[in-house]
Amino acid sequence: MKIVAFHQNGQPGVGLVSSDLKQIQPFDLTAVQRGQGALPIIEMQARGEALPALLAAVALADVHITAPLPKPRRNIFCVGKNYFAHAKEFAGSGFDSSAKSGGDIPADPIIFTKVPESVVGPGATIEMPAVSTAIDYEAELAVIIGRGGKGIAAGDAMSHVWGYTIVNDVTARDWQSRHQQWDMGKSFDTFCPMGPWLVSADECDGSKTRLRCYVNNELRQDASTADLIFDIPKLIETLSAGITLYPGDVIATGTPVGVGIGFKPPKYLQAGDVVRIEIDGIGSLENPVG
Amino acid sequence: MKIVAFHQNGQPGVGLVSSDLKQIQPFDLTAVQRGQGALPIIEMQARGEALPALLAAVALADVHITAPLPKPRRNIFCVGKNYFAHAKEFAGSGFDSSAKSGGDIPADPIIFTKVPESVVGPGATIEMPAVSTAIDYEAELAVIIGRGGKGIAAGDAMSHVWGYTIVNDVTARDWQSRHQQWDMGKSFDTFCPMGPWLVSADECDGSKTRLRCYVNNELRQDASTADLIFDIPKLIETLSAGITLYPGDVIATGTPVGVGIGFKPPKYLQAGDVVRIEIDGIGSLENPVG
Repeated sequence: MKIVAFHQNGQPGVGLVSSDLKQIQPFDLTAVQRGQGALPIIEMQARGEALPALLAAVALADVHITAPLPKPRRNIFCVGKNYFAHAKEFAGSGFDSSAKSGGDIPADPIIFTKVPESVVGPGATIEMPAVSTAIDYEAELAVIIGRGGKGIAAGDAMSHVWGYTIVNDVTARDWQSRHQQWDMGKSFDTFCPMGPWLVSADECDGSKTRLRCYVNNELRQDASTADLIFDIPKLIETLSAGITLYPGDVIATGTPVGVGIGFKPPKYLQAGDVVRIEIDGIGSLENPVG
Repeated sequence: MKIVAFHQNGQPGVGLVSSDLKQIQPFDLTAVQRGQGALPIIEMQARGEALPALLAAVALADVHITAPLPKPRRNIFCVGKNYFAHAKEFAGSGFDSSAKSGGDIPADPIIFTKVPESVVGPGATIEMPAVSTAIDYEAELAVIIGRGGKGIAAGDAMSHVWGYTIVNDVTARDWQSRHQQWDMGKSFDTFCPMGPWLVSADECDGSKTRLRCYVNNELRQDASTADLIFDIPKLIETLSAGITLYPGDVIATGTPVGVGIGFKPPKYLQAGDVVRIEIDGIGSLENPVG
Protein backbone atom coordinates (compact mmCIF):
# COMPACT_ATOMS: atom_id res chain seq x y z
CA MET A 1 0.00 0.00 0.00
CA LYS A 2 0.92 3.65 -0.38
CA ILE A 3 0.00 6.00 2.45
CA VAL A 4 -0.16 9.70 1.67
CA ALA A 5 -0.64 12.65 3.99
CA PHE A 6 -2.32 15.70 2.54
CA HIS A 7 -4.19 18.92 3.12
CA GLN A 8 -7.58 19.53 1.55
CA ASN A 9 -9.41 22.80 2.16
CA GLY A 10 -6.87 23.52 4.87
CA GLN A 11 -7.58 20.31 6.79
CA PRO A 12 -5.04 17.50 7.20
CA GLY A 13 -5.87 13.99 6.02
CA VAL A 14 -4.20 10.60 5.62
CA GLY A 15 -5.19 8.01 3.08
CA LEU A 16 -4.41 5.15 0.71
CA VAL A 17 -3.26 6.00 -2.79
CA SER A 18 -4.92 4.00 -5.57
CA SER A 19 -2.76 1.84 -7.83
CA ASP A 20 -3.27 4.27 -10.74
CA LEU A 21 -2.10 7.12 -8.46
CA LYS A 22 -5.24 9.11 -9.24
CA GLN A 23 -7.35 8.65 -6.11
CA ILE A 24 -6.97 8.80 -2.32
CA GLN A 25 -9.17 6.87 0.08
CA PRO A 26 -8.87 8.82 3.37
CA PHE A 27 -8.72 6.93 6.65
CA ASP A 28 -11.36 7.72 9.25
CA LEU A 29 -9.09 9.21 11.93
CA THR A 30 -9.38 11.77 14.72
CA ALA A 31 -8.20 15.33 14.10
CA VAL A 32 -5.09 14.74 16.23
CA GLN A 33 -4.26 11.55 14.30
CA ARG A 34 -4.75 13.23 10.94
CA GLY A 35 -2.16 15.82 11.93
CA GLN A 36 0.41 13.06 12.49
CA GLY A 37 0.38 11.74 8.94
CA ALA A 38 1.02 8.03 8.50
CA LEU A 39 2.33 7.54 12.05
CA PRO A 40 -0.98 6.45 13.66
CA ILE A 41 -1.50 3.87 10.89
CA ILE A 42 1.96 2.40 11.38
CA GLU A 43 1.42 2.28 15.14
CA MET A 44 -1.96 0.55 14.73
CA GLN A 45 -0.43 -2.07 12.47
CA ALA A 46 2.48 -2.58 14.88
CA ARG A 47 -0.11 -3.28 17.60
CA GLY A 48 -1.83 -5.78 15.32
CA GLU A 49 -4.95 -3.66 14.99
CA ALA A 50 -7.11 -3.45 11.88
CA LEU A 51 -6.78 -0.40 9.68
CA PRO A 52 -9.38 2.36 10.21
CA ALA A 53 -12.41 2.55 7.98
CA LEU A 54 -12.00 4.33 4.64
CA LEU A 55 -13.98 7.42 3.67
CA ALA A 56 -15.13 8.44 0.21
CA ALA A 57 -12.30 8.75 -2.31
CA VAL A 58 -10.94 12.12 -3.37
CA ALA A 59 -8.87 12.93 -6.43
CA LEU A 60 -5.13 13.14 -5.78
CA ALA A 61 -5.09 16.19 -8.04
CA ASP A 62 -7.48 17.97 -5.67
CA VAL A 63 -5.27 17.81 -2.57
CA HIS A 64 -1.96 19.28 -1.46
CA ILE A 65 0.45 16.44 -0.61
CA THR A 66 2.45 16.96 2.59
CA ALA A 67 5.28 14.91 4.11
CA PRO A 68 3.99 11.42 4.97
CA LEU A 69 5.46 11.80 8.46
CA PRO A 70 5.17 15.58 8.91
CA LYS A 71 6.85 15.40 12.32
CA PRO A 72 8.59 12.09 12.99
CA ARG A 73 8.39 10.81 16.56
CA ARG A 74 12.03 11.69 17.21
CA ASN A 75 15.10 12.79 15.25
CA ILE A 76 15.58 10.90 12.00
CA PHE A 77 18.50 8.46 12.04
CA CYS A 78 20.77 9.04 9.06
CA VAL A 79 23.70 7.05 7.70
CA GLY A 80 26.87 8.76 6.50
CA LYS A 81 29.20 7.58 3.72
CA ASN A 82 27.23 4.42 2.94
CA TYR A 83 28.08 4.09 -0.77
CA PHE A 84 31.71 3.39 -1.81
CA ALA A 85 31.96 6.01 -4.54
CA HIS A 86 30.35 8.69 -2.36
CA ALA A 87 32.71 7.93 0.52
CA LYS A 88 35.58 8.57 -1.88
CA GLU A 89 34.18 11.80 -3.33
CA PHE A 90 33.47 13.06 0.19
CA ALA A 91 36.99 12.30 1.39
CA GLY A 92 38.43 13.93 -1.72
CA SER A 93 36.44 17.12 -1.19
CA GLY A 94 38.58 18.23 1.73
CA PHE A 95 35.39 18.81 3.72
CA ASP A 96 35.61 15.59 5.71
CA SER A 97 36.68 16.45 9.24
CA SER A 98 36.40 12.91 10.60
CA ALA A 99 39.53 11.08 11.64
CA LYS A 100 39.04 8.15 9.30
CA SER A 101 39.04 10.30 6.19
CA GLY A 102 41.55 10.08 3.40
CA GLY A 103 39.37 7.97 1.17
CA ASP A 104 38.68 5.39 3.85
CA ILE A 105 35.56 3.30 3.59
CA PRO A 106 33.93 3.19 7.03
CA ALA A 107 34.36 -0.12 8.85
CA ASP A 108 31.17 0.46 10.85
CA PRO A 109 28.00 2.46 10.15
CA ILE A 110 28.20 6.20 10.79
CA ILE A 111 24.92 7.41 12.31
CA PHE A 112 23.85 11.01 12.85
CA THR A 113 20.44 12.65 13.10
CA LYS A 114 18.18 15.36 11.70
CA VAL A 115 15.59 17.06 13.92
CA PRO A 116 11.93 16.15 13.23
CA GLU A 117 11.08 19.78 12.51
CA SER A 118 13.47 19.82 9.52
CA VAL A 119 10.91 17.75 7.57
CA VAL A 120 8.98 19.42 4.76
CA GLY A 121 6.78 17.91 2.08
CA PRO A 122 6.89 17.63 -1.71
CA GLY A 123 7.00 21.01 -3.40
CA ALA A 124 8.01 22.85 -0.23
CA THR A 125 10.88 25.29 -0.54
CA ILE A 126 14.34 24.35 0.74
CA GLU A 127 15.21 27.64 2.40
CA MET A 128 18.72 28.97 1.78
CA PRO A 129 20.02 29.99 5.20
CA ALA A 130 21.89 33.28 5.52
CA VAL A 131 24.54 31.56 7.68
CA SER A 132 25.81 29.03 5.10
CA THR A 133 27.30 29.28 1.64
CA ALA A 134 27.54 25.55 0.93
CA ILE A 135 24.09 23.94 0.74
CA ASP A 136 24.08 20.49 -0.81
CA TYR A 137 21.51 17.83 -1.78
CA GLU A 138 21.65 14.12 -0.91
CA ALA A 139 19.14 11.70 -2.44
CA GLU A 140 18.34 8.85 -0.08
CA LEU A 141 16.09 5.84 0.39
CA ALA A 142 14.51 6.10 3.85
CA VAL A 143 13.41 3.02 5.78
CA ILE A 144 10.29 3.27 7.96
CA ILE A 145 10.27 0.97 10.99
CA GLY A 146 7.04 -0.95 11.56
CA ARG A 147 7.34 -3.30 14.53
CA GLY A 148 9.76 -1.89 17.10
CA GLY A 149 12.37 -3.80 19.02
CA LYS A 150 15.83 -4.01 20.52
CA GLY A 151 18.68 -6.38 19.78
CA ILE A 152 17.21 -7.19 16.37
CA ALA A 153 19.37 -9.66 14.44
CA ALA A 154 20.11 -8.84 10.81
CA GLY A 155 18.35 -12.04 9.76
CA ASP A 156 15.13 -10.85 11.39
CA ALA A 157 15.47 -7.16 10.58
CA MET A 158 13.32 -7.03 7.44
CA SER A 159 10.30 -8.16 9.46
CA HIS A 160 10.63 -4.83 11.33
CA VAL A 161 10.52 -2.75 8.15
CA TRP A 162 7.13 -1.20 7.40
CA GLY A 163 8.31 0.28 4.13
CA TYR A 164 10.08 3.17 2.45
CA THR A 165 10.00 6.76 1.32
CA ILE A 166 12.34 9.30 -0.27
CA VAL A 167 14.27 11.92 1.68
CA ASN A 168 16.61 14.66 0.58
CA ASP A 169 19.27 14.88 3.29
CA VAL A 170 20.02 18.56 2.66
CA THR A 171 23.29 19.62 4.26
CA ALA A 172 25.17 22.81 5.09
CA ARG A 173 28.65 21.51 4.20
CA ASP A 174 30.48 24.34 5.97
CA TRP A 175 28.59 23.65 9.20
CA GLN A 176 29.06 19.89 8.81
CA SER A 177 32.81 20.36 8.63
CA ARG A 178 33.33 23.22 11.07
CA HIS A 179 31.35 21.68 13.91
CA GLN A 180 32.77 18.13 13.51
CA GLN A 181 29.59 16.33 14.58
CA TRP A 182 27.06 16.58 11.78
CA ASP A 183 23.64 16.94 13.44
CA MET A 184 23.59 20.72 13.33
CA GLY A 185 24.53 21.20 9.67
CA LYS A 186 21.98 18.51 8.76
CA SER A 187 19.10 19.87 10.87
CA PHE A 188 18.47 23.39 9.58
CA ASP A 189 14.81 24.25 9.06
CA THR A 190 13.47 22.74 5.76
CA PHE A 191 16.54 20.49 5.36
CA CYS A 192 14.58 17.23 5.17
CA PRO A 193 12.19 17.11 2.22
CA MET A 194 10.27 13.80 2.49
CA GLY A 195 7.72 12.07 0.28
CA PRO A 196 5.70 11.82 -1.79
CA TRP A 197 4.24 8.98 0.31
CA LEU A 198 5.17 5.83 2.21
CA VAL A 199 5.29 2.59 0.23
CA SER A 200 4.95 -0.68 2.14
CA ALA A 201 7.75 -3.23 1.92
CA ASP A 202 5.67 -5.67 -0.14
CA GLU A 203 5.52 -3.13 -2.98
CA CYS A 204 9.16 -2.02 -3.08
CA ASP A 205 12.39 -4.01 -2.74
CA GLY A 206 14.60 -1.58 -0.82
CA SER A 207 17.57 -3.91 -1.19
CA LYS A 208 17.91 -3.21 -4.90
CA THR A 209 16.04 -0.22 -6.13
CA ARG A 210 17.38 2.58 -8.31
CA LEU A 211 17.57 6.18 -7.18
CA ARG A 212 18.32 9.25 -9.24
CA CYS A 213 18.71 12.89 -8.36
CA TYR A 214 18.33 15.79 -10.76
CA VAL A 215 19.17 19.44 -10.17
CA ASN A 216 17.36 21.59 -12.74
CA ASN A 217 16.87 18.42 -14.82
CA GLU A 218 20.63 17.68 -14.86
CA LEU A 219 21.21 14.12 -13.66
CA ARG A 220 23.57 14.26 -10.69
CA GLN A 221 23.09 10.95 -8.86
CA ASP A 222 22.15 7.57 -10.33
CA ALA A 223 22.74 4.46 -8.25
CA SER A 224 21.18 1.30 -6.85
CA THR A 225 20.63 0.60 -3.16
CA ALA A 226 22.23 -2.78 -3.94
CA ASP A 227 25.49 -0.84 -3.59
CA LEU A 228 24.96 0.22 0.03
CA ILE A 229 28.07 -0.54 2.10
CA PHE A 230 25.89 -1.41 5.11
CA ASP A 231 22.59 -2.87 3.96
CA ILE A 232 19.26 -2.31 5.66
CA PRO A 233 19.42 -5.42 7.89
CA LYS A 234 22.90 -4.44 9.09
CA LEU A 235 21.75 -0.88 9.84
CA ILE A 236 18.78 -2.10 11.88
CA GLU A 237 20.92 -4.64 13.75
CA THR A 238 23.49 -1.96 14.59
CA LEU A 239 21.01 0.73 15.66
CA SER A 240 18.88 -1.61 17.74
CA ALA A 241 21.84 -3.14 19.59
CA GLY A 242 21.66 -0.43 22.24
CA ILE A 243 18.65 1.69 21.24
CA THR A 244 15.07 0.43 21.27
CA LEU A 245 13.47 1.16 17.88
CA TYR A 246 9.83 2.26 17.69
CA PRO A 247 7.13 2.12 15.02
CA GLY A 248 7.53 5.12 12.74
CA ASP A 249 11.26 5.54 13.26
CA VAL A 250 12.96 6.75 10.08
CA ILE A 251 16.39 5.61 8.91
CA ALA A 252 17.81 7.51 5.91
CA THR A 253 20.21 5.00 4.40
CA GLY A 254 22.83 7.33 2.92
CA THR A 255 23.47 8.99 -0.42
CA PRO A 256 25.39 7.78 -3.50
CA VAL A 257 28.09 9.57 -5.48
CA GLY A 258 27.20 12.79 -7.25
CA VAL A 259 26.51 15.34 -4.52
CA GLY A 260 27.44 18.96 -5.16
CA ILE A 261 30.57 18.81 -3.05
CA GLY A 262 31.97 16.06 -5.25
CA PHE A 263 32.40 18.41 -8.22
CA LYS A 264 35.43 20.66 -8.69
CA PRO A 265 34.44 23.39 -8.13
CA PRO A 266 31.49 22.25 -5.98
CA LYS A 267 28.00 22.63 -7.41
CA TYR A 268 26.15 23.89 -4.36
CA LEU A 269 22.45 24.64 -4.46
CA GLN A 270 21.41 28.18 -5.37
CA ALA A 271 18.12 30.01 -4.98
CA GLY A 272 15.98 29.16 -7.99
CA ASP A 273 17.27 25.60 -8.35
CA VAL A 274 14.88 22.65 -8.32
CA VAL A 275 15.93 19.28 -6.88
CA ARG A 276 14.08 16.15 -7.98
CA ILE A 277 14.73 12.71 -6.55
CA GLU A 278 13.24 9.59 -8.12
CA ILE A 279 13.29 6.14 -6.55
CA ASP A 280 11.91 3.19 -8.51
CA GLY A 281 8.91 1.68 -6.75
CA ILE A 282 8.23 4.86 -4.76
CA GLY A 283 7.91 7.89 -7.02
CA SER A 284 9.51 11.31 -7.16
CA LEU A 285 10.12 14.13 -4.69
CA GLU A 286 10.68 17.61 -6.09
CA ASN A 287 11.56 20.73 -4.12
CA PRO A 288 12.52 24.23 -5.17
CA VAL A 289 15.35 26.08 -3.49
CA GLY A 290 14.55 29.57 -2.31
CA MET B 1 10.56 27.86 41.04
CA LYS B 2 11.39 24.18 41.01
CA ILE B 3 9.16 21.90 38.91
CA VAL B 4 9.19 18.22 39.74
CA ALA B 5 7.56 15.30 37.92
CA PHE B 6 6.57 12.34 40.02
CA HIS B 7 4.50 9.21 40.41
CA GLN B 8 2.16 8.74 43.35
CA ASN B 9 0.09 5.60 43.67
CA GLY B 10 1.09 4.76 40.11
CA GLN B 11 -0.27 8.03 38.68
CA PRO B 12 1.97 10.73 37.14
CA GLY B 13 1.93 14.25 38.52
CA VAL B 14 3.76 17.55 38.06
CA GLY B 15 4.16 20.16 40.75
CA LEU B 16 6.05 22.95 42.45
CA VAL B 17 8.64 22.02 45.06
CA SER B 18 8.51 24.06 48.28
CA SER B 19 11.56 26.07 49.28
CA ASP B 20 12.32 23.67 52.14
CA LEU B 21 12.19 20.78 49.60
CA LYS B 22 9.64 18.92 51.74
CA GLN B 23 6.36 19.53 49.91
CA ILE B 24 4.98 19.41 46.37
CA GLN B 25 2.03 21.45 45.21
CA PRO B 26 0.71 19.56 42.17
CA PHE B 27 -0.56 21.47 39.14
CA ASP B 28 -4.13 20.83 38.05
CA LEU B 29 -3.39 19.25 34.64
CA THR B 30 -5.05 16.73 32.33
CA ALA B 31 -3.87 13.12 32.38
CA VAL B 32 -2.06 13.58 29.08
CA GLN B 33 -0.30 16.70 30.37
CA ARG B 34 0.71 15.01 33.62
CA GLY B 35 2.45 12.31 31.58
CA GLN B 36 4.62 14.92 29.88
CA GLY B 37 6.26 16.22 33.04
CA ALA B 38 7.22 19.88 33.09
CA LEU B 39 6.80 20.35 29.32
CA PRO B 40 3.19 21.62 29.38
CA ILE B 41 4.10 24.19 32.06
CA ILE B 42 7.04 25.50 30.02
CA GLU B 43 4.86 25.68 26.91
CA MET B 44 2.12 27.56 28.79
CA GLN B 45 4.63 30.09 30.09
CA ALA B 46 6.15 30.48 26.61
CA ARG B 47 2.65 31.33 25.34
CA GLY B 48 2.28 33.89 28.12
CA GLU B 49 -0.47 31.92 29.86
CA ALA B 50 -1.00 31.81 33.61
CA LEU B 51 0.14 28.71 35.47
CA PRO B 52 -2.54 26.08 36.20
CA ALA B 53 -4.22 26.03 39.58
CA LEU B 54 -2.44 24.19 42.39
CA LEU B 55 -3.90 21.20 44.19
CA ALA B 56 -3.40 20.18 47.82
CA ALA B 57 0.24 19.71 48.79
CA VAL B 58 1.76 16.26 49.17
CA ALA B 59 4.96 15.32 50.96
CA LEU B 60 7.98 14.93 48.68
CA ALA B 61 8.90 11.86 50.70
CA ASP B 62 5.62 10.21 49.71
CA VAL B 63 6.17 10.31 45.93
CA HIS B 64 8.54 8.69 43.46
CA ILE B 65 10.44 11.42 41.58
CA THR B 66 10.73 10.84 37.83
CA ALA B 67 12.67 12.76 35.16
CA PRO B 68 11.29 16.32 34.94
CA LEU B 69 11.01 15.90 31.16
CA PRO B 70 10.36 12.15 30.93
CA LYS B 71 10.31 12.28 27.14
CA PRO B 72 11.73 15.50 25.71
CA ARG B 73 9.99 16.85 22.60
CA ARG B 74 12.90 15.79 20.39
CA ASN B 75 16.47 14.53 20.75
CA ILE B 76 18.46 16.33 23.40
CA PHE B 77 21.16 18.63 22.01
CA CYS B 78 24.51 17.90 23.65
CA VAL B 79 27.83 19.71 23.50
CA GLY B 80 31.12 17.85 23.15
CA LYS B 81 34.49 18.87 24.56
CA ASN B 82 33.25 22.11 26.10
CA TYR B 83 35.71 22.36 29.03
CA PHE B 84 39.44 22.86 28.30
CA ALA B 85 40.78 20.20 30.66
CA HIS B 86 38.22 17.63 29.49
CA ALA B 87 39.05 18.30 25.82
CA LYS B 88 42.66 17.50 26.68
CA GLU B 89 41.91 14.33 28.66
CA PHE B 90 39.62 13.13 25.86
CA ALA B 91 42.25 13.72 23.19
CA GLY B 92 44.86 11.99 25.33
CA SER B 93 42.69 8.92 25.78
CA GLY B 94 43.22 7.73 22.23
CA PHE B 95 39.46 7.33 21.90
CA ASP B 96 38.89 10.54 20.00
CA SER B 97 38.20 9.69 16.38
CA SER B 98 37.54 13.26 15.26
CA ALA B 99 39.94 14.92 12.87
CA LYS B 100 40.71 17.84 15.14
CA SER B 101 42.00 15.67 17.97
CA GLY B 102 45.52 15.75 19.32
CA GLY B 103 44.68 17.94 22.24
CA ASP B 104 43.00 20.59 20.14
CA ILE B 105 40.42 22.81 21.75
CA PRO B 106 37.43 23.04 19.41
CA ALA B 107 37.15 26.34 17.56
CA ASP B 108 33.39 25.95 17.22
CA PRO B 109 30.77 24.13 19.31
CA ILE B 110 30.48 20.38 18.70
CA ILE B 111 26.81 19.36 18.83
CA PHE B 112 25.44 15.81 18.89
CA THR B 113 22.19 14.36 20.24
CA LYS B 114 20.68 11.75 22.55
CA VAL B 115 17.28 10.20 21.75
CA PRO B 116 14.39 11.30 24.02
CA GLU B 117 13.78 7.71 25.10
CA SER B 118 17.25 7.50 26.68
CA VAL B 119 15.97 9.68 29.55
CA VAL B 120 15.44 8.08 32.97
CA GLY B 121 14.77 9.66 36.34
CA PRO B 122 16.60 9.90 39.67
CA GLY B 123 17.30 6.48 41.16
CA ALA B 124 16.67 4.63 37.90
CA THR B 125 19.24 2.06 36.88
CA ILE B 126 21.78 2.84 34.17
CA GLU B 127 21.65 -0.47 32.33
CA MET B 128 24.98 -1.99 31.32
CA PRO B 129 24.54 -3.03 27.68
CA ALA B 130 25.89 -6.39 26.58
CA VAL B 131 27.35 -4.80 23.45
CA SER B 132 29.78 -2.38 25.13
CA THR B 133 32.66 -2.73 27.55
CA ALA B 134 33.37 0.97 28.01
CA ILE B 135 30.48 2.75 29.73
CA ASP B 136 31.34 6.18 31.08
CA TYR B 137 29.63 8.95 33.08
CA GLU B 138 29.53 12.66 32.19
CA ALA B 139 28.13 15.20 34.66
CA GLU B 140 26.49 18.12 32.87
CA LEU B 141 24.43 21.23 33.45
CA ALA B 142 21.44 21.09 31.10
CA VAL B 143 19.73 24.24 29.84
CA ILE B 144 15.96 24.18 29.30
CA ILE B 145 14.68 26.51 26.59
CA GLY B 146 11.64 28.59 27.51
CA ARG B 147 10.69 30.95 24.71
CA GLY B 148 11.61 29.46 21.35
CA GLY B 149 13.15 31.25 18.42
CA LYS B 150 15.56 31.30 15.51
CA GLY B 151 18.55 33.52 14.86
CA ILE B 152 18.82 34.36 18.56
CA ALA B 153 21.75 36.71 19.24
CA ALA B 154 24.02 35.81 22.16
CA GLY B 155 23.08 39.08 23.85
CA ASP B 156 19.41 38.08 23.88
CA ALA B 157 19.91 34.35 24.51
CA MET B 158 19.40 34.29 28.26
CA SER B 159 15.86 35.61 27.82
CA HIS B 160 15.13 32.30 26.05
CA VAL B 161 16.37 30.17 28.96
CA TRP B 162 13.63 28.79 31.19
CA GLY B 163 16.08 27.21 33.59
CA TYR B 164 18.27 24.23 34.32
CA THR B 165 18.52 20.63 35.41
CA ILE B 166 21.20 17.96 35.79
CA VAL B 167 21.91 15.26 33.21
CA ASN B 168 24.35 12.39 33.16
CA ASP B 169 25.48 12.08 29.53
CA VAL B 170 26.25 8.35 29.81
CA THR B 171 28.38 7.16 26.91
CA ALA B 172 29.53 3.87 25.36
CA ARG B 173 33.09 4.99 24.55
CA ASP B 174 33.78 2.08 22.18
CA TRP B 175 30.66 2.91 20.15
CA GLN B 176 31.44 6.64 20.23
CA SER B 177 34.85 5.96 18.70
CA ARG B 178 34.04 3.11 16.33
CA HIS B 179 31.08 4.79 14.66
CA GLN B 180 32.71 8.26 14.35
CA GLN B 181 29.49 10.23 14.81
CA TRP B 182 28.49 10.08 18.48
CA ASP B 183 24.68 9.92 18.53
CA MET B 184 24.49 6.13 18.69
CA GLY B 185 26.96 5.56 21.54
CA LYS B 186 25.24 8.37 23.48
CA SER B 187 21.66 7.19 22.92
CA PHE B 188 21.50 3.70 24.41
CA ASP B 189 18.44 3.00 26.54
CA THR B 190 18.81 4.54 30.07
CA PHE B 191 21.84 6.63 29.00
CA CYS B 192 20.35 9.98 30.02
CA PRO B 193 19.57 10.20 33.74
CA MET B 194 17.90 13.59 34.33
CA GLY B 195 16.72 15.42 37.43
CA PRO B 196 15.87 15.75 40.18
CA TRP B 197 13.77 18.71 38.94
CA LEU B 198 13.90 21.82 36.79
CA VAL B 199 15.05 25.02 38.46
CA SER B 200 14.03 28.33 36.87
CA ALA B 201 16.76 30.72 35.77
CA ASP B 202 15.97 33.26 38.51
CA GLU B 203 17.00 30.70 41.15
CA CYS B 204 20.23 29.39 39.59
CA ASP B 205 23.03 31.22 37.79
CA GLY B 206 24.03 28.72 35.12
CA SER B 207 26.95 30.88 34.06
CA LYS B 208 28.91 30.13 37.22
CA THR B 209 27.64 27.23 39.23
CA ARG B 210 29.68 24.33 40.57
CA LEU B 211 29.16 20.73 39.52
CA ARG B 212 30.62 17.60 41.08
CA CYS B 213 30.37 13.95 40.14
CA TYR B 214 30.98 11.06 42.50
CA VAL B 215 31.27 7.37 41.64
CA ASN B 216 30.75 5.29 44.79
CA ASN B 217 31.41 8.45 46.82
CA GLU B 218 34.78 9.02 45.12
CA LEU B 219 34.94 12.56 43.75
CA ARG B 220 35.70 12.33 40.03
CA GLN B 221 34.58 15.66 38.58
CA ASP B 222 34.58 19.08 40.27
CA ALA B 223 34.33 22.19 38.11
CA SER B 224 32.48 25.43 37.52
CA THR B 225 30.34 26.21 34.50
CA ALA B 226 32.29 29.48 34.41
CA ASP B 227 34.93 27.39 32.65
CA LEU B 228 32.75 26.40 29.68
CA ILE B 229 34.63 27.01 26.42
CA PHE B 230 31.37 28.02 24.70
CA ASP B 231 29.03 29.64 27.19
CA ILE B 232 25.25 29.28 27.21
CA PRO B 233 24.54 32.41 25.11
CA LYS B 234 27.06 31.26 22.47
CA LEU B 235 25.51 27.76 22.37
CA ILE B 236 22.00 29.16 21.89
CA GLU B 237 23.19 31.60 19.24
CA THR B 238 24.96 28.81 17.35
CA LEU B 239 22.13 26.26 17.55
CA SER B 240 19.42 28.74 16.63
CA ALA B 241 21.28 30.14 13.63
CA GLY B 242 19.79 27.46 11.38
CA ILE B 243 17.46 25.49 13.65
CA THR B 244 14.32 26.93 15.25
CA LEU B 245 14.40 26.24 19.00
CA TYR B 246 11.19 25.32 20.85
CA PRO B 247 10.01 25.57 24.45
CA GLY B 248 11.24 22.51 26.34
CA ASP B 249 14.30 21.91 24.17
CA VAL B 250 17.20 20.59 26.26
CA ILE B 251 20.85 21.54 25.72
CA ALA B 252 23.36 19.54 27.76
CA THR B 253 26.32 21.91 28.00
CA GLY B 254 29.20 19.43 28.15
CA THR B 255 31.21 17.71 30.87
CA PRO B 256 34.37 18.78 32.72
CA VAL B 257 37.59 16.84 33.28
CA GLY B 258 37.44 13.62 35.32
CA VAL B 259 35.45 11.15 33.22
CA GLY B 260 36.38 7.48 33.42
CA ILE B 261 38.21 7.50 30.11
CA GLY B 262 40.61 10.15 31.39
CA PHE B 263 42.21 7.74 33.88
CA LYS B 264 45.01 5.34 32.96
CA PRO B 265 43.75 2.67 32.94
CA PRO B 266 40.21 3.98 32.34
CA LYS B 267 37.72 3.77 35.21
CA TYR B 268 34.63 2.65 33.34
CA LEU B 269 31.34 2.07 35.12
CA GLN B 270 30.65 -1.41 36.44
CA ALA B 271 27.45 -3.08 37.61
CA GLY B 272 26.96 -2.15 41.26
CA ASP B 273 28.44 1.34 40.94
CA VAL B 274 26.47 4.41 41.98
CA VAL B 275 26.92 7.73 40.15
CA ARG B 276 25.91 10.94 41.95
CA ILE B 277 26.01 14.37 40.33
CA GLU B 278 25.57 17.53 42.37
CA ILE B 279 25.07 21.00 40.92
CA ASP B 280 24.87 24.00 43.24
CA GLY B 281 21.49 25.66 43.01
CA ILE B 282 19.81 22.55 41.59
CA GLY B 283 20.40 19.50 43.80
CA SER B 284 21.72 16.01 43.22
CA LEU B 285 21.00 13.21 40.78
CA GLU B 286 21.95 9.68 41.82
CA ASN B 287 21.68 6.54 39.70
CA PRO B 288 22.84 2.98 40.26
CA VAL B 289 24.51 1.00 37.48
CA GLY B 290 23.09 -2.45 36.84
